[in-house]
Amino acid sequence: MTIDDVIQEALKIYKPTLREEEALLEIADKIISEVGRESSGYSGILKTSLEGSLAKRTWVRGREEVDVFVHFYPTIPHDEMESKIIDLGFKVLEKLGGKPRLMYADHPYVESRLENVVVNIVACYSVEPPNWISATDRTPYHTRYILEKMDQSLRDDARLMKAFMIGCNVYGAEIKIRGFSGYLAELLILNYNGFKNALEAISNWRPPIIIDIEGYYNSYSEVLSLFPKQSLIVIDPVDKFRNVASAVSEERLYELILASKLFLRSPSLKFFKVGRHLPKRSNLEKKTRNRNFIAVFFRLSKSKPPDILWGEIKKSEQGIKRSLEKNGFRIYRTASWTDEEKNCLIILELEYSMLPRIIIHEGPPVTHPNVLEFIDEWSRREEKVAGPWISGSRLYVLKKKQLIDVKKILKRDIEEGRVALAKGLAEDIKNGRIFTSIERLMKYKQLSVFLGEFLDGKPPYL
Amino acid sequence: MTIDDVIQEALKIYKPTLREEEALLEIADKIISEVGRESSGYSGILKTSLEGSLAKRTWVRGREEVDVFVHFYPTIPHDEMESKIIDLGFKVLEKLGGKPRLMYADHPYVESRLENVVVNIVACYSVEPPNWISATDRTPYHTRYILEKMDQSLRDDARLMKAFMIGCNVYGAEIKIRGFSGYLAELLILNYNGFKNALEAISNWRPPIIIDIEGYYNSYSEVLSLFPKQSLIVIDPVDKFRNVASAVSEERLYELILASKLFLRSPSLKFFKVGRHLPKRSNLEKKTRNRNFIAVFFRLSKSKPPDILWGEIKKSEQGIKRSLEKNGFRIYRTASWTDEEKNCLIILELEYSMLPRIIIHEGPPVTHPNVLEFIDEWSRREEKVAGPWISGSRLYVLKKKQLIDVKKILKRDIEEGRVALAKGLAEDIKNGRIFTSIERLMKYKQLSVFLGEFLDGKPPYL
Repeated sequence: MTIDDVIQEALKIYKPTLREEEALLEIADKIISEVGRESSGYSGILKTSLEGSLAKRTWVRGREEVDVFVHFYPTIPHDEMESKIIDLGFKVLEKLGGKPRLMYADHPYVESRLENVVVNIVACYSVEPPNWISATDRTPYHTRYILEKMDQSLRDDARLMKAFMIGCNVYGAEIKIRGFSGYLAELLILNYNGFKNALEAISNWRPPIIIDIEGYYNSYSEVLSLFPKQSLIVIDPVDKFRNVASAVSEERLYELILASKLFLRSPSLKFFKVGRHLPKRSNLEKKTRNRNFIAVFFRLSKSKPPDILWGEIKKSEQGIKRSLEKNGFRIYRTASWTDEEKNCLIILELEYSMLPRIIIHEGPPVTHPNVLEFIDEWSRREEKVAGPWISGSRLYVLKKKQLIDVKKILKRDIEEGRVALAKGLAEDIKNGRIFTSIERLMKYKQLSVFLGEFLDGKPPYL
Repeated sequence: MTIDDVIQEALKIYKPTLREEEALLEIADKIISEVGRESSGYSGILKTSLEGSLAKRTWVRGREEVDVFVHFYPTIPHDEMESKIIDLGFKVLEKLGGKPRLMYADHPYVESRLENVVVNIVACYSVEPPNWISATDRTPYHTRYILEKMDQSLRDDARLMKAFMIGCNVYGAEIKIRGFSGYLAELLILNYNGFKNALEAISNWRPPIIIDIEGYYNSYSEVLSLFPKQSLIVIDPVDKFRNVASAVSEERLYELILASKLFLRSPSLKFFKVGRHLPKRSNLEKKTRNRNFIAVFFRLSKSKPPDILWGEIKKSEQGIKRSLEKNGFRIYRTASWTDEEKNCLIILELEYSMLPRIIIHEGPPVTHPNVLEFIDEWSRREEKVAGPWISGSRLYVLKKKQLIDVKKILKRDIEEGRVALAKGLAEDIKNGRIFTSIERLMKYKQLSVFLGEFLDGKPPYL
């Protein structure tokens, strides 16, 4: 297929029909009226509005979301706004028959699924740029900006870009993904004037990349000094001091670059497809042979918003990795999974599952004041196997390690509080179970897709 | 014992008696007369003289050497001098009942054992400083300098220093040791005015150390720029452009510093003793448990002077080490042994004797022009286990290694000429045998002392 064929096919799949659009807007209307009606019972609220991809007409079929923004007067204190939006959100969504959940992005909002659509009730302050009070205050301006700048065709290209990013696993600014937000996808389409152009540009990106659509800055160096160490800088057209891409991780950035290269070389619908396949048992044995894993499976003692949970999981994943490295293990890869409700898994692939029994221990240089103490100490120590000898200007000994099994070492370090776990998960992880066998983990059915992907260890489009 | 007690005891052991001295000088006289007589049959020879520790009266009892120098006219070409000294040396030493051997220091000389004394017949040019032609031309000046500067007491201290260095395994400038020459030991005694003072100074050395007895230089920086990267610089009193300590390795230098510290803290005769003990079989099993070794045992197809042989062995030892490291092995220690006639051994201690079956392979950055070729190549490769995935800006894959056993890998690399062996030993090493078991090597009785010391891996005084 040519690239244009693929794009046509993708549009058929990911662009909603007129009928679908109308139905969705009808639902949104109903919700907004309900929020408006209900909000009259709270002081400090100016109005409600529809924002996000639905308002901008840039949503991807199958990923419908209704973002209802409740605009507060700037005089309302933040904690009062928070408690009001939670109260209001739960009330409206329950009334409409949903099961509301408290969520966190930059500040709390309430989410529920209603008639197969995700509905978010979000608070913002009604302010003029650049007098932002909370992070969501910019959203109405984003909506207005995109609506103003994008014609029908660019909006469809924004849908394509989002669908492409979804298929390549780089879509979403939340901590779980650390990828590209919807607004960022739209700005890329706007900047490069269409999907094909954008992919071609992205495929040639050599970070750091600077995109300043409104031309707020005169030089790259000015931008780079304002946003140091960022590989992708997309200046927000409604706020010149904000990098829309600040949440994008290196990995997601380079994954998108690679996906663009591959797509342009061989255009295919597979780049858009969210294909999760169950690994076969027979393959599993072959895929895990000779490989070394360690995984901690644990249950949450209390529920928390996904962004909080994922932040804690990622922090704990890094803590476990660093703790094992400090013990002398080499870590090839790490990953985490959660159903965001009850069960979590942190998994690492290692070079060896055992440390060497005999390790080299570096002592002080011979000229160090403590050198004789070192000699004395190691003439007594039972664990010494050979030495001390001198290499270069330093002393070395070989010593025998008692504990060399990764499972036992991790268990001990977690129990003794030596692993830098997220506070909110420390107890749950202590009560968790440590696995070294993928086969055993596979018994948890819900893990099998994740584990299959982890074993393969490659982007979905490869 | 106090330090003075130990010194008194050591002098009793290592200082020859007057009677021994007389007997030795008698032997030396006999040899010199014989060399003198015989040399009259060669043109170009000016005279013969006694040099070295015997002439300087600084030899250590039990290490008697008679160094006979044959002085050639500067007009004699170097190769002519070489062939003459070899011819003359073999003739005289055979006539006196010895079994002469060709040796190399900086140039050829002839050695033999006669009446339990080592006799060296060495050639030099009769020149005035600084018109040196060959490396040995300075020796007569060294003899004269030491005789002039040292009284009886300092000469005894020089014997002590040499005995101490022998006991600590740091004595000898030859490639096998890369330690302190006799002349260097004498200069240290001279510079610090005695054995005790010298040890105290050495125990506080923080390299680089500069010793310029004759005060040829005005500043340290001048010396350091003339002898860059040298940790110990002892300016030769008879040649300001020569560092007498240039052959001293870092290890020997720091071993002497450490030995001085330890001796001063607890003076003992053990620092002087050359104690070689056979390891017990029962200890052996305990000492080798959990440790990983690889050793190449090989026989010399032709004999060569020790300094040449040791140079080749050390080069090959480094070549094997680097080759194994390139394969991914971590080497803790290396050592070599030879009887200097027929049998050689190179041994290494390793962290593991097997590589991990699965290793991580780093690919190009995503922005590299060849990135798609990398992807294509690794989508075909059978050995791929997982990936490619992106970490940071780079691609990685996990791949399966076929050959992971150190013995097989070293065998293959030696056979395929991939190991940087000394040319003069390459064939002999190829025909050698690779061992991973110390027990098996122990069957070669002559190796047992060396292997016992290697297993302990510490200086003799510890």
